[in-house]
Amino acid sequence: MKTLKIPEATIIRLSVYSRHLTDVDRKGIITTSSGDIAEGVGVSPAQVRKDLAYFGEFGTRGVGYNVKDLRQHILRILGLSVDWSVCLVGAGNLGLALSTYKGFRERGFIITSIFDSDPAKVGTMIGDVKVLPLEQLEEVGKQNRTQIGIVAVPASAAQEIVDQLIKIGVKAILNFAPVVLNVPAQIELRNVDLAVNLEVLTFNVGAQRF
Amino acid sequence: MKTLKIPEATIIRLSVYSRHLTDVDRKGIITTSSGDIAEGVGVSPAQVRKDLAYFGEFGTRGVGYNVKDLRQHILRILGLSVDWSVCLVGAGNLGLALSTYKGFRERGFIITSIFDSDPAKVGTMIGDVKVLPLEQLEEVGKQNRTQIGIVAVPASAAQEIVDQLIKIGVKAILNFAPVVLNVPAQIELRNVDLAVNLEVLTFNVGAQRF
Repeated sequence: MKTLKIPEATIIRLSVYSRHLTDVDRKGIITTSSGDIAEGVGVSPAQVRKDLAYFGEFGTRGVGYNVKDLRQHILRILGLSVDWSVCLVGAGNLGLALSTYKGFRERGFIITSIFDSDPAKVGTMIGDVKVLPLEQLEEVGKQNRTQIGIVAVPASAAQEIVDQLIKIGVKAILNFAPVVLNVPAQIELRNVDLAVNLEVLTFNVGAQRF
Repeated sequence: MKTLKIPEATIIRLSVYSRHLTDVDRKGIITTSSGDIAEGVGVSPAQVRKDLAYFGEFGTRGVGYNVKDLRQHILRILGLSVDWSVCLVGAGNLGLALSTYKGFRERGFIITSIFDSDPAKVGTMIGDVKVLPLEQLEEVGKQNRTQIGIVAVPASAAQEIVDQLIKIGVKAILNFAPVVLNVPAQIELRNVDLAVNLEVLTFNVGAQRF
């Protein structure tokens, strides 16, 4: 089966469209159009149509899109029509922020386990999840059928954690440690570097120089 | 003066190249090539040359790039040859994580003030910065010649904070609140939605369906 290459920018916009459609649906609105969606999220109607066209025909000409159907379609495209079992490694400030981030649960990312190597953190509760020692990652991670690992540990510890996550069968890893990680080709890895976000800003502030 | 439209992906790669060059420089290596850089960061040599070509000629044919010079060039392009005065609003878990994030200071983003509306947080120290009440944002923000604001407050409070940041003269805002913010055209705004990162992963995990 041929895999279409979908631009990442399209995927990110689909995510934005789906949030917008959730809001529209909550307001009780039944049908919408690419123009309405475009206005709601701040892109052009042509962009909305192009993004959706990667995945087939959704709307009805002259009628538009059914809000609930389109939302469900997009969630299915994003892999969000099911819940994902997520394991968080690292219960420092960033780990705490991530584990209490409402946006994850809303989108079906359920943090089922949290691990840390610090004995002072082990046993504490974050929301309704108890922080476990790293030694239990393999056993508990498998029990919870963990599909996604979030790495929020110092750079020096990250590769070892990633190797363990792969051993328990995760399909995807979101890495916040500022280090280049080695993973097999079938594992989806995404690195988040918070400083890069500021650098895009400062580049844009100074962009008139070029 | 005509402003060239540089792809954001190029800016993000420049950031990655500059980190790689910092490492190479620390090892005492004097010259490098697009092939070496490409191998070091995991892109193609043609991509490295294309990204750099947006900003003029850097290397010498047959000799390659001087590591220190190229690094300095890229930092200047990214607006990182100077320090930036950053104000953080919101000292919750995410604010704490951001304020102790080493990657910011290393790249010249200096958090010069931190504000929170919670009396329990006001007066506490985060690193060497004291958390101040929101009421002092205008006065202290101006004193510190704040150029960048980071918004790490709940969605309901974000627009009001952004309006205040604009009033004290920030040029750029990094927003972590899950809400669409209104800013004047001359203000650079970047929204970080942590859940989107997971959604790109789950899309990719399931991408063979299309």
